[in-house]
Amino acid sequence: MAAQPVCASGPGGSGELAAGVAMAVVVMKFGGTSVANVERIRNVCRHVKREVDAGNKVAVVVSAMSGATNQLVAWVREASLLHDAREYDAIVASGEQVTAGLTAIVLQSMGLQARSWQGWQIPVITDKAHGAARILDIKGETLRERLDQGEVAVVTGFQGIEPERNRIATLGRGGSDTSAVALAVALKADVCDIYTDVDGVYTTDPRIVPKAQRLPKVSYEEMLEMASLGSKVLQTRSVELAMLYRMRTRVLSSFVAPEAMQPFRLDGLEDIGTIVCDEDEIVEQQVVSGIAYAKDEAKITILKVADKPGIAARVFGPLAEANINVDMIVQNITPDGKFTDMTFTVQAAELPRTLEVLKSAKESIGYNDVMASADVVKVSVIGVGMRSHAGVAAQMFQALASKGINILAISTSEIKISVLIEAPYAELAVRSLHSLYGLDKD
Amino acid sequence: MAAQPVCASGPGGSGELAAGVAMAVVVMKFGGTSVANVERIRNVCRHVKREVDAGNKVAVVVSAMSGATNQLVAWVREASLLHDAREYDAIVASGEQVTAGLTAIVLQSMGLQARSWQGWQIPVITDKAHGAARILDIKGETLRERLDQGEVAVVTGFQGIEPERNRIATLGRGGSDTSAVALAVALKADVCDIYTDVDGVYTTDPRIVPKAQRLPKVSYEEMLEMASLGSKVLQTRSVELAMLYRMRTRVLSSFVAPEAMQPFRLDGLEDIGTIVCDEDEIVEQQVVSGIAYAKDEAKITILKVADKPGIAARVFGPLAEANINVDMIVQNITPDGKFTDMTFTVQAAELPRTLEVLKSAKESIGYNDVMASADVVKVSVIGVGMRSHAGVAAQMFQALASKGINILAISTSEIKISVLIEAPYAELAVRSLHSLYGLDKD
Repeated sequence: MAAQPVCASGPGGSGELAAGVAMAVVVMKFGGTSVANVERIRNVCRHVKREVDAGNKVAVVVSAMSGATNQLVAWVREASLLHDAREYDAIVASGEQVTAGLTAIVLQSMGLQARSWQGWQIPVITDKAHGAARILDIKGETLRERLDQGEVAVVTGFQGIEPERNRIATLGRGGSDTSAVALAVALKADVCDIYTDVDGVYTTDPRIVPKAQRLPKVSYEEMLEMASLGSKVLQTRSVELAMLYRMRTRVLSSFVAPEAMQPFRLDGLEDIGTIVCDEDEIVEQQVVSGIAYAKDEAKITILKVADKPGIAARVFGPLAEANINVDMIVQNITPDGKFTDMTFTVQAAELPRTLEVLKSAKESIGYNDVMASADVVKVSVIGVGMRSHAGVAAQMFQALASKGINILAISTSEIKISVLIEAPYAELAVRSLHSLYGLDKD
Repeated sequence: MAAQPVCASGPGGSGELAAGVAMAVVVMKFGGTSVANVERIRNVCRHVKREVDAGNKVAVVVSAMSGATNQLVAWVREASLLHDAREYDAIVASGEQVTAGLTAIVLQSMGLQARSWQGWQIPVITDKAHGAARILDIKGETLRERLDQGEVAVVTGFQGIEPERNRIATLGRGGSDTSAVALAVALKADVCDIYTDVDGVYTTDPRIVPKAQRLPKVSYEEMLEMASLGSKVLQTRSVELAMLYRMRTRVLSSFVAPEAMQPFRLDGLEDIGTIVCDEDEIVEQQVVSGIAYAKDEAKITILKVADKPGIAARVFGPLAEANINVDMIVQNITPDGKFTDMTFTVQAAELPRTLEVLKSAKESIGYNDVMASADVVKVSVIGVGMRSHAGVAAQMFQALASKGINILAISTSEIKISVLIEAPYAELAVRSLHSLYGLDKD
């Protein structure tokens, strides 16, 4: 991919800003803990002011104040456990509305031009899947005009409008990251900065491995695997979008003093946070970039199913129909060759529904018994370097074996290897693999 | 107009919906205390269900959960004391959004068809006066179609959309009453029922006069005077609208057991709450219908201004420019005939600004000194019967004099007389006048 053209303010380039340094379009996203109260919103606005003062054009995407969405969801559940997703959306979307307005007011009080935008005002067009909607389009023209006039746009994250019924639709929990990346794409932004309560993406969870290191850069592909394999830093869908549109995305801490950070510049960035970018922008690529783990897995074993063609379809068909995602699958062969045991994993939250579906399909599948356990963990090693380096998996299995850790299931892709292990071994496994692949901080 | 038949349970009493009883369109408005939590919203929905079960077509208007708006306003003030009214509106409008969604969910859980509507979705068109906007138009066609299909419309009170900038505008505190009446007009409703925490309009405040009585009916004109003279039951603007469009409006308590009330019927209403209606629907009209009092008055006296033409303009011009409403005005003549003292009243909240305006206009007005007091109360007697009965004022002044109560200022209209008195005499004055005009309960 060609380097990005470094000219935003039109040809000629004379004028106020130093020659050659063009203004950038920056999208800045702040999560719930960063806007938890008015004092923190003030801090967020100082981050925004830093960018505006440097000549950047800024759109801000905000989440609801932390706790607000939980309160709203609790009211909805108290109203009815079976609720209309469209009403749920109208209710929970109000949280971001409040933050966006407060942010605009504080920015104005700092002398900046600013206004809040709700999803339906831009509009951010979504599909009909209320509660877990996907953004179909963002009509960014008006917003972009306002940015060009020097106004900061403060946009409600997590929501858009389903145009056919003219109703608010939300993107699901954590959807503000996705809103930010989608908006950055629509505005042709130079960067999408995701401010959060950690200062970047780490080689693994620093709470488990104190020697974990911040990754200055990580590729879209690796970030996508990390997000879907348990890292909570970015929402999976937002990374998919960033990857699809090659939108450079940074993960930064909002709790760093705003004035201690450099504003975004097209001609060079300081080494802060983590830049999610193209693989070939990363000069010294490690074979393994990170170790992820996910505790919300559940393992199910179906005992003694007939070992014949079509049996997998009979097991997994009903689960797919019930919208249950199956992850790892292992099939053992029992000695007599007629029957087999099948093991697979699902999200722990889906375990009760999964068991129900299997129970009602017992006749058509034909099995002896079902065993289930949520006391398992999926540990994954991730790295684009695996494509060109053999032996990563072998090293991994050997290391785990030498610690006496039993592997219950395995799944792989081009750039990751995941193993399912018993939960009590999770920390030991993560620490061992982190050392094994040379990720420990000196 | 013919007197209203006072028959609640219908003729003959055969069958569920007796022949000839048409379905009515009913707008039901519930204030903040009526929807303070999900349990109370459930109670509200039982009121709605009663109407739907009786065959009525129902639109519900809801306020924010009590306390919610205060929290939102507090955040706005913390963000900045000088805030953009458009952002304020975007923030505070979220309160009703939450209640509307929750109400729709509860109604659905009771087996009713329902959906929430935000001001911009209907749309409710307002002018540009953010924070105190006026409704210009309500496009009620879609809503009316939905009602005709048996769906309950749950509408956010207090807000609409300013179409030019496509931004949410609020009507000011208490604006949900106005939303309800305006919606009732747009839907050509048969009645606008305002549910509140009192069971109707009283001859005066029952907390001061235990002998106060509920008024079964009150005329638009009287209600308008009561609202603007201190009764908090209905918002003034909503009564103006009801009067303008002759929209029959009832004041009812939401805390009465929903099933203990009769549903609205076109052919007769039970004697419950207060009906605000045309004067000639009220058969036994009293000369005086009620006594109102307002504590939020402040009295200002400008001492020794020149007694010459144009002086009033020089005093009240600057106040009008500053958007300060002057209510009662008294001008005394001092012995030498050259100078005069001017006394007038403003809202107590406006007192500091009023004094500031007068101070900066001191040169152009030319006065000696200014005295101010917020320790005054305005007591008013109201009744359309005054038009045809002389002597009401004389009786009033005599009664107050006999109690030793000094009258500081007087203002009158065709159907009301207001006097300004010192605050400590307020209760005595109200009680005396309540007896004087025969309003005491037996």
